[in-house]
This record gives sequence, structure tokens and C-alpha cells, in this order.
Amino acid sequence: MEQRLKKLMTLMEEHKLDALVASLPENVAYGTNYQSLAHWRHPVRRTYAVIRKDRSPILIMPAGSADAFFRQESQGTDVRTYGDFYVEIGRQPLDQVSSLFLHALEQRKKGAKPIHLLAEALTGCRRIGLDEQRVTGGERDELFSLLPGVETVDAYGIWRQARAVKSEKEIARIEKATRITEEALQEALDVLKLGGTEQEAVIAFRSRVVKEGALPTFIYIGAGFRGAWPNAGGSTHVPRPGEPIRFDLGCIYEGYHSDIARTAIKKPVPEEISVKYEALRVGFEAGLAVIKEGVTPAEVFERVVQSVRQHGIPDYQRHHVGHGEGLEGYDPPLLAPGVQEPLEAGMTLCLETPHYILGQGGLHLEDTIVVTKEGYRSLSTMPRHLIEL
Amino acid sequence: MEQRLKKLMTLMEEHKLDALVASLPENVAYGTNYQSLAHWRHPVRRTYAVIRKDRSPILIMPAGSADAFFRQESQGTDVRTYGDFYVEIGRQPLDQVSSLFLHALEQRKKGAKPIHLLAEALTGCRRIGLDEQRVTGGERDELFSLLPGVETVDAYGIWRQARAVKSEKEIARIEKATRITEEALQEALDVLKLGGTEQEAVIAFRSRVVKEGALPTFIYIGAGFRGAWPNAGGSTHVPRPGEPIRFDLGCIYEGYHSDIARTAIKKPVPEEISVKYEALRVGFEAGLAVIKEGVTPAEVFERVVQSVRQHGIPDYQRHHVGHGEGLEGYDPPLLAPGVQEPLEAGMTLCLETPHYILGQGGLHLEDTIVVTKEGYRSLSTMPRHLIEL
Repeated sequence: MEQRLKKLMTLMEEHKLDALVASLPENVAYGTNYQSLAHWRHPVRRTYAVIRKDRSPILIMPAGSADAFFRQESQGTDVRTYGDFYVEIGRQPLDQVSSLFLHALEQRKKGAKPIHLLAEALTGCRRIGLDEQRVTGGERDELFSLLPGVETVDAYGIWRQARAVKSEKEIARIEKATRITEEALQEALDVLKLGGTEQEAVIAFRSRVVKEGALPTFIYIGAGFRGAWPNAGGSTHVPRPGEPIRFDLGCIYEGYHSDIARTAIKKPVPEEISVKYEALRVGFEAGLAVIKEGVTPAEVFERVVQSVRQHGIPDYQRHHVGHGEGLEGYDPPLLAPGVQEPLEAGMTLCLETPHYILGQGGLHLEDTIVVTKEGYRSLSTMPRHLIEL
Repeated sequence: MEQRLKKLMTLMEEHKLDALVASLPENVAYGTNYQSLAHWRHPVRRTYAVIRKDRSPILIMPAGSADAFFRQESQGTDVRTYGDFYVEIGRQPLDQVSSLFLHALEQRKKGAKPIHLLAEALTGCRRIGLDEQRVTGGERDELFSLLPGVETVDAYGIWRQARAVKSEKEIARIEKATRITEEALQEALDVLKLGGTEQEAVIAFRSRVVKEGALPTFIYIGAGFRGAWPNAGGSTHVPRPGEPIRFDLGCIYEGYHSDIARTAIKKPVPEEISVKYEALRVGFEAGLAVIKEGVTPAEVFERVVQSVRQHGIPDYQRHHVGHGEGLEGYDPPLLAPGVQEPLEAGMTLCLETPHYILGQGGLHLEDTIVVTKEGYRSLSTMPRHLIEL
């Protein structure tokens, strides 16, 4: 059995569940390998994955999207479809994907609502972990009326817990997404160096990302006081000498997110900016130095914040200094005060030390690493110093 | 008062509601003009809009995202924030956005969950339309416990109804998105004409879309039997002469979607493909000819399907021949059997006649129009014939 299914089974055992339901696209992807634009684009067309101890994973989806699943990975998943979709059958023999798609269309439950198929897939289960994120109150009521006596537990958190430790395949995708992000950041830096606007840098970033087969997610590029806005949009401003330029950027590659940040500046660099950036960099490195399996996120947080305070920003305050990353841009764990569950080998972490100086500028350093037994492995390759343009 | 607020008020009157809550990013955008990547990226960080008859719109959002709202349009909206976010205040005087952002940070409700702020914003309301799409069963339970005696109605459908008729500003954005899609489709066609793969055509499309300041949403490009998969992914296949190539493409520009489809083919064109495509084109034009305010979607559906059947595909079957388009890729109305609410001037429609021949290929024609009192205005400009490469 695959690692991800083993992990889900263990968590079901722990929470005494007979079944685990995924409703969010990210959790459906984790449970069944089904990733589809259609699911992301049309979240109200419900797609569910059902993991049971006693049978193969079940995927419930609109019939007209089933081709996307069969192009990906279909072995061992029980696909059940709903909704109308019409095709003509040509005279040529069918390729495998077309055959599977036709079968899914023929087997679709005419007139059934997805919640009916979900209830059917849960028959015989007493206690169910229900990923509550894409199940409305009304749908939950309907599920209860279809399955009298059933008990449900909110399970979005359980799915997230399952997803925290990554497989080698998942890490490879995150590493690739990170590499693409770095290459695209370099394009954005080149544009600004040549006198381009923030917006031109955003477009250069996006263009490179899509050329590499990924999709941009967020691109925050802001110079001067705009850089202190956490969601800086990329304006028509041309960065001036001495204005820090904050980059916080990500993309999605084969379903997996990247998230890196850097700060650049055109010379001359004001003394205050150098000092503060260096404090953030030293704090970042201090955090890295303590990361390994068994350390708590709270310890990493403390180490980073204390170090930044000692090295140049005495009032440094943060709600977190990083987060996991994977199928969601924010996977567990959060590197924040009070988070005591120890880091595990295979967790992917975005460690970060942003600093927003309202009216003046934003400074930011963020990289992605994988936790190992002895320490970490960096998925980012760019140097971490303040970039002089 | 703005057109959209008037429309919402009318619907509240009709449904006897004291307040209307938006939870889906698209509905929040409609209610408050707040469009944010952060909201799309992190749907579990709740953002709500509350429209009440007796006061200004209320926007409930994470404090750290408030800068994005103030960069857009902030007049007349009551912003209430939650969650921790820290900034340093520089020595320079603050620009307007930074001032508003700082104020939102200072006013944030420390330790409050978004559902608490929602309950507070609904104080005094008896009957509430609750956009159920981003409210879990547990959150709904909590809302009931915080507002004893309150009654809620599922209101996602009410929001959609409000959004069906577009303003001139909305139509301009959809028109721009459509124009960008056509330009990018032309790039994809050029790649295939020069012997490129489906995947290379996908990348050419994406690249042009992002250069124009939009974001690609879905790009289905499939030649031969792959074109009959509705979610054709863009493979390494180089289209061969005689294989129809189906394009179904969209992007998002300033929050508004496009969706157009075309079919191309390298010569020689098989007789069967010409005949079937022509049936789809004639059916499409027949549908266009009946569209105007007051006609029902069911009538448009009947007209299109009957015409396609008469002109070359006797067994043509469809579940719909189009849909509205706007903040969601599928806005109301659906051009489908049984839909009897008449078309209204200002509705944007994607009319389409796709045909999937499993094992052989896909044919597709889709364009965007605006319904007028006398007929329609086309937002697409490309000719509708079969494109010979």
C-alpha cells in the first residue's frame, strides 16, 4: 500500500474512524491522485474522495470530468460519477483513456446528487471523518438524513496532518516548483535592474513560470513604502535607489506549491536597511541551525525572533516565522509560539523573516527546506544576502 | 447607490431578508469590490461580506490582507479585521493606503474568530441569507449559538441571481478577457501551424495571457482522439493532417472570466468533419438569431439542438448549450432544458456547441455575447468557421 494511504489508515485508527472523506481539492488529490482544473474552477460541483479501511479509495466526481482522472492515475480507485454528459462513439477502436471515460459515463448515477453518492459510499460506516471545508451545513444535514445514526468528526485537520510529512515524489515536485520560482525571480530582478516597473517585473516573473509548465499563484513585488504592504500588487512605480524591493513569490507545479522571498535594492543602500536586513538574515540562519527532527516549531520560532532582536531589530514581532508547504501553500506545521508537536523528517518548511516598515518599505527572506533526522536539506539554491541591483 | 447594491437590496426585499452574507470570494467581490489573491489562495481564512438594509456593506477579513482591499476601493465599506499581523511604523508620513491599513491593524479583534465578527455584524437581524458555500456545518452551528432565534436561508443562489445581469464596467472586463483569449489562441494556432506540440501550444497561450496582465484559467487543447476528452490536457502529440484540434480556453482579467472555443485542422479535411462542424456552426448561429431579452434559455437550447440535428448531426445531444459568465466561469443563466426565467438585457452568455466523438476527435465552437433588448452584442471577434492550418 502506498505511503499516503498507510498514513491515512493510521490516523483513522487513532481517531477511531471507519471512513475519512475529502472534499477540498487538495485533500481529494492526496487521497486519490486526482488533480483537476475543473475541480479547482468549479468548487460547487462537488468532488469527494472516500477512504475506508475495508476497501479501495472511492472517488465521486462529475461524469464530464472523469477523463481528467483517467489521464492521471486510475489503478485501484473506484470511480463513481454523477451529472449528464453526452458523447458520440466514433467508429475507431478506443484508446484506454477513452474506454475508461466511456465506462464512467455509462455507469453514472442519473439524477443523483453528489451527496447521495457520498452517502452510498459510506454505507455501513458508523463514525466518519468529514473534511468539512466543502460540505455546507445543508449537505451535512442531508448526509445525516441519508445515514441515520452516523456520527461525524470535522476532518480537515486530520487530512492536513496526514499531508504534513512528504514522500520523495512530493518533495521532488516542491523542489521543482522552487527552482522555477527562483529562475522566474531572476527574470524579475533583471527587468528592475534595467529600469522596469514593478508591474513589468511581475509580468516577467509570470511569463517564465508559465514557460516552465507551472502556474503563478501569488506575486508580491513592492518597492519603497509599497513593499510594506504584505499583498503589494506590482504597480507602475520604478524602484528608486535606496528603496528596498520586497519579493514574495510562488507558483504551483503538478499541484505542489512554492513560496520564496528575497529583498533587492538599487545602490546606495541606506545604513538602516543594511542593518535590519542583516538582522533578519542572521535570525533566519539561526532558525535553520536548530531545525531537525524532534525540535518543536515553538523552539524554532523563539530562536529566530530572539536572534533577530539581538542582531538589529530590537522590537521584532511576528505571529509565525514560517509554515509547511505542499498541496496547500500553507501546510502544517506553523512555526509559531505554542506549537509543540515536534518536527518530523520529510516535512517541508518555508522558513521566513519578513519585516514590514509602514511608510518606508518591506524586507523579506524566505526559503524552503526539508526536515531530516540530523538537520535539513535546502530546496532553494539562491544566496540569501540583500541583492544589490 | 451603486447598481449592484440596488440589485442586492431588491433581492433581499423579495426573499424577506434583513441581511445577505457572502462567503465565496466571487460573492465577496460582488458585494464589496474586494478581490484578493489571498482570499482565493487561502479559502480557509474566512472572508465575509455582509449587506444590510440599514447600513453600509461590512467586510470581515484577516488583518494581514487588508492592504489589498485599501488598494482597490474602500469608500463606504466598513472593514472589520481579525488575526495577528505585526508591522513597524517608519518615521516617514504615511500614504493613504498605509494609513488605512494601519488603522485596520489597530482595530483588529484580537483572539476573535471570523464567525464571531460575522455574528456581531448580523446583530439585530432576524432572517439572514447565508451564502452557504464557505460556511461549514460547524460554523453554521456556531452562528446559531451566537445569534439565538435567527433564521438562515441558503443564499449562494441569491448572490448568483444578483450577478447575472452585468454593469457596463463588468462587461468591459469580460470583453477585455475575451480579447486577450482570442489573441492568445492565435499564438497557439501559430505554434501548431509551425509543427509544434499541443503542450507547446498551451504554453504559447499561457505566455500571451500573462503578458496581457491576465491569468490563464483552463486551457484544453486536444487533437484527434484527445480532443474528445472534455478536459484534454495538451500532450506532446503533434497534430496530424485531418485530425480536428479542439480548443476550449479561458482566462481571468480583473476578476472576470472568459471562455471561448474553436476547432482547427490541418488539411486535408475529412468530409465527415466538415459536415459535422458545419452543423455545429449553423446550430450556433441559429441560437444567436433567437437571443434577445425575454426569450427563455430553454427556447435557445431547443433552437440550437434542433438546428444541429437538422444540419448534419442527427443524434446531437447536449445537457446545455451555454452559460452565463462573469465573476464565476459559470454564472447564471444555464442555457438548458427547463430553464424558463427569461433572458435579460445585460446578461453575458457563452453560447456553445461542443461535440465529442470518442476515439476520433472533438469539435467545439463557443463565443461570448451580451444580451440586449433587440438581440445581442458579440464580445468575440474571431470568425466562426473551421480554422484550416
